[in-house]
Amino acid sequence: MNRVSIAPGGTEFAIPSNEEINTSFDQLVSHVKEQRQQGRQIVVVQGLGCVGTAVAAVIADARGPLGQPLYFVIGVDLPTPASYWKVAKLNNGVSPVISTDNELPRLIHKAVRETKNLCATVSEQAYSLADVILVDIPLDVTHPDTQSLDDIEIDLKRFERAIQTVGRHMRPDALILIETTVPIGTCEAIVLPILRKERSQRDLNEPLYLAHAYERVMPGPHYVDSIRRYWRTFAGIDGPSAAKAREFLESFIDTKAYPLWELDNTRSSELAKLLENSYRATNIAFIYEWTLLAEQLGINLFAVIESIRVREGTHDNMRLPGFGVGGYCLTKDSLLAQWSASHLFENGVILQMTLDALQINREMPKHTFDLLSELAQGDLANKAIAICGVSYLSEVADTRNSPTELLVDELLKAEAQITVHDPLVRKWPERSKIPLTQDLAECLEQAEGIVFAVPHRMYLDLPVEALLNREKPPPIIVDAQNIISDEKAKLLYDAGCRLLGVGKGHWRKQGYHRLK
Amino acid sequence: MNRVSIAPGGTEFAIPSNEEINTSFDQLVSHVKEQRQQGRQIVVVQGLGCVGTAVAAVIADARGPLGQPLYFVIGVDLPTPASYWKVAKLNNGVSPVISTDNELPRLIHKAVRETKNLCATVSEQAYSLADVILVDIPLDVTHPDTQSLDDIEIDLKRFERAIQTVGRHMRPDALILIETTVPIGTCEAIVLPILRKERSQRDLNEPLYLAHAYERVMPGPHYVDSIRRYWRTFAGIDGPSAAKAREFLESFIDTKAYPLWELDNTRSSELAKLLENSYRATNIAFIYEWTLLAEQLGINLFAVIESIRVREGTHDNMRLPGFGVGGYCLTKDSLLAQWSASHLFENGVILQMTLDALQINREMPKHTFDLLSELAQGDLANKAIAICGVSYLSEVADTRNSPTELLVDELLKAEAQITVHDPLVRKWPERSKIPLTQDLAECLEQAEGIVFAVPHRMYLDLPVEALLNREKPPPIIVDAQNIISDEKAKLLYDAGCRLLGVGKGHWRKQGYHRLK
Repeated sequence: MNRVSIAPGGTEFAIPSNEEINTSFDQLVSHVKEQRQQGRQIVVVQGLGCVGTAVAAVIADARGPLGQPLYFVIGVDLPTPASYWKVAKLNNGVSPVISTDNELPRLIHKAVRETKNLCATVSEQAYSLADVILVDIPLDVTHPDTQSLDDIEIDLKRFERAIQTVGRHMRPDALILIETTVPIGTCEAIVLPILRKERSQRDLNEPLYLAHAYERVMPGPHYVDSIRRYWRTFAGIDGPSAAKAREFLESFIDTKAYPLWELDNTRSSELAKLLENSYRATNIAFIYEWTLLAEQLGINLFAVIESIRVREGTHDNMRLPGFGVGGYCLTKDSLLAQWSASHLFENGVILQMTLDALQINREMPKHTFDLLSELAQGDLANKAIAICGVSYLSEVADTRNSPTELLVDELLKAEAQITVHDPLVRKWPERSKIPLTQDLAECLEQAEGIVFAVPHRMYLDLPVEALLNREKPPPIIVDAQNIISDEKAKLLYDAGCRLLGVGKGHWRKQGYHRLK
Repeated sequence: MNRVSIAPGGTEFAIPSNEEINTSFDQLVSHVKEQRQQGRQIVVVQGLGCVGTAVAAVIADARGPLGQPLYFVIGVDLPTPASYWKVAKLNNGVSPVISTDNELPRLIHKAVRETKNLCATVSEQAYSLADVILVDIPLDVTHPDTQSLDDIEIDLKRFERAIQTVGRHMRPDALILIETTVPIGTCEAIVLPILRKERSQRDLNEPLYLAHAYERVMPGPHYVDSIRRYWRTFAGIDGPSAAKAREFLESFIDTKAYPLWELDNTRSSELAKLLENSYRATNIAFIYEWTLLAEQLGINLFAVIESIRVREGTHDNMRLPGFGVGGYCLTKDSLLAQWSASHLFENGVILQMTLDALQINREMPKHTFDLLSELAQGDLANKAIAICGVSYLSEVADTRNSPTELLVDELLKAEAQITVHDPLVRKWPERSKIPLTQDLAECLEQAEGIVFAVPHRMYLDLPVEALLNREKPPPIIVDAQNIISDEKAKLLYDAGCRLLGVGKGHWRKQGYHRLK
């Protein structure tokens, strides 16, 4: 009996047998031969997640001076229920990643169906065909309790096995480009020894080409451009590796507008990625404690920050008050850095402020819960609560580490009746038992309490009537993402709603949280 | 016997007697009468420090549509040894503040000597002449040990007395504009009650005009423009106060290029100032812990940050590794915010991350000491150490809270022989017993160890020979401010120096700290 892999939309795909995998690999080999004859290099992308899929599409779209495709691109993922559907979808010409950027599905459709220089496979032998292997597999942090440094555990085994597989099959002179966000020192202390060992077992004595070039993929409307038209930093383990990586990156990134940044060594490049995401996370956490202060003092912190942001070059990136921090990067990258210091280098350095910031961000949704609980006078039991927004960012469907998780957990503890709405999210794997709807009107109609948790366009555009035309009494409302304007807030309050907002101390000062 | 007040340059000024003060006030009164007849409003600036002096100069330079001076400006300071010299200097047409911005002495000379619409006095009766009173006195934080919140003590008495004096003399309809950086709530909870009390004793029942408009004065080459051509945020205690403040600010700030930002209330404006400086301080502290990590890992953190800063709008304000944080604002403003929460509002909010950042910044110079101590193999006793730079910022003469203080204290504990050089600082009141020289060549000639602590232009331009042409053995060198390029570092190391640099892990990796 064949196992199946179910895509988020519900489509089932039968996972191929070993025999089927081998047959399709044979076909791939002859296909690759043709492609080489057309002068194309072969690029294999390991991991068809948010990064790998988009990178594969962009590389397949790279063109030479005569307009000819430069590469034949093969995406590789695992023949497992969790992953195979990505391979199947891609081979159907459909992006496994849902995005508001139409350029992504367009590129994938074109490359798979028209130029036919993009496909996917579960065969690990695919690495043996590659001139360039991009590593885009995730490296997850488990038990990330920042209170205790010993608790930082990284799922290195999976990563190491993936590198082993590459080493076992790679051509001697292939370039391996690590795009995965990794602990500092990973290329030198983990990847390199594994590859050397695998290659020595194959008696490969040629020079090894290894580089690190971290991605800055932003899901959302500029998804593809965040790869093709954005700054890229890289480093090689030696000069020849760096030179190969530079040539490759220049072939699909608009380096005229965004020249490459080469750093001295892979450690520098690995640290750069963790540093920039930690900076963002820390700047968010910083505003959080001022949010609590501003609310207590009746101050509209949004207006204050708007006035400060005019200071270009020093203060214009000040973050706004909000609901919390989610996603794959900002919630964990600082832990990778600390893990490096503690486990790879054992140098005693503790990134205390950086880790504190992570913890603060993690606890932020609790504040929104507290505001809701205050409006409900501490009694949320059996109250129908609508949470508007479950993705971790506006206009994306990605729910990884969504801060809504924590709010939901707190509401469950308070025995509230929760319904979650999101215009883009069709499945919430992290909290699959929570009712998730696409029908905003119905969701709001039923609600006794409403939380705006993600600044999706459709919430910003929501007319006041959508919250009021109902048979139930006016709801209590917490705006955690600056979605409700002051004008709308006044109308809602006048209509009998009671409101509080994260960072909106002026609402409290105006008494919007009290019965009229 | 008359007391004297000695200016930093050494000039002595006899402090006037009460009789002299009264006589000169009578002259001022008749002068002001003439000025009013010429259609000028009278502005009195309370406090002739770094802010008050420059603001007075800029306001005196404000012109009407026909080119005529709009204001007659009177600077007021105290008849004390610590302050009187400022009044005397200003009346001589000389700026009491030393600056690399030639515009400041030019404006003061012109206004005092040519247009004769700027003068200074110690007479508190001057406030009775004013249409507008600007409060620019300092509000110092004493015992700022951030470890214990109870230790945050603010010297409010002096501030309160100054406001009392204003209330005792002010014209009923004068506008009072607070520019001093104050705890959140000060205008409403401290200034307003004092003024009301003083005015009620004078039976003044007219409306009171009070506003807060915080300055963003930057000492250095754009000193004057940091007032005249920069963003300004303000708020009034009520609508009429805000309107008056707006009209006044528009008369001397280039609000066409930099429109005013009006906030809802003075609390918002007071918080904004503390928030923006706390943000800067926190961003500096954040980089500090990554500096320690990068150094351990042999990474050139400057190159890494340069590569990250290309991310405009999110990461381009990332700070660089350095020696520490000094000056009047970044070292204390966060404490004012915490003091507000704890003492004015008692709301239980603790700005933990913000206070931690302050503490980190305070301890930063210790790291430079540690690097120097490492190069000296722990033995700095009787070693001749030259510290290059004592001001808290490059190209300014201001030594307030200079991080060099902490380095000097550590070096004294280690029994080193210290000489300090600074091209701009002629007197270091905070550490007056430490030898301070303007002769860089001699200072370097004698040194067994050299620390670059301030990135003054003259240090950046220093040729390698200046550190080597000497009879003594090559010195040990710590570059705490990215002053020595990698090329120079190599030459110095090749010539027998041993070097370490803050944020320069690559120097350590290259072994520049070891004997060749």
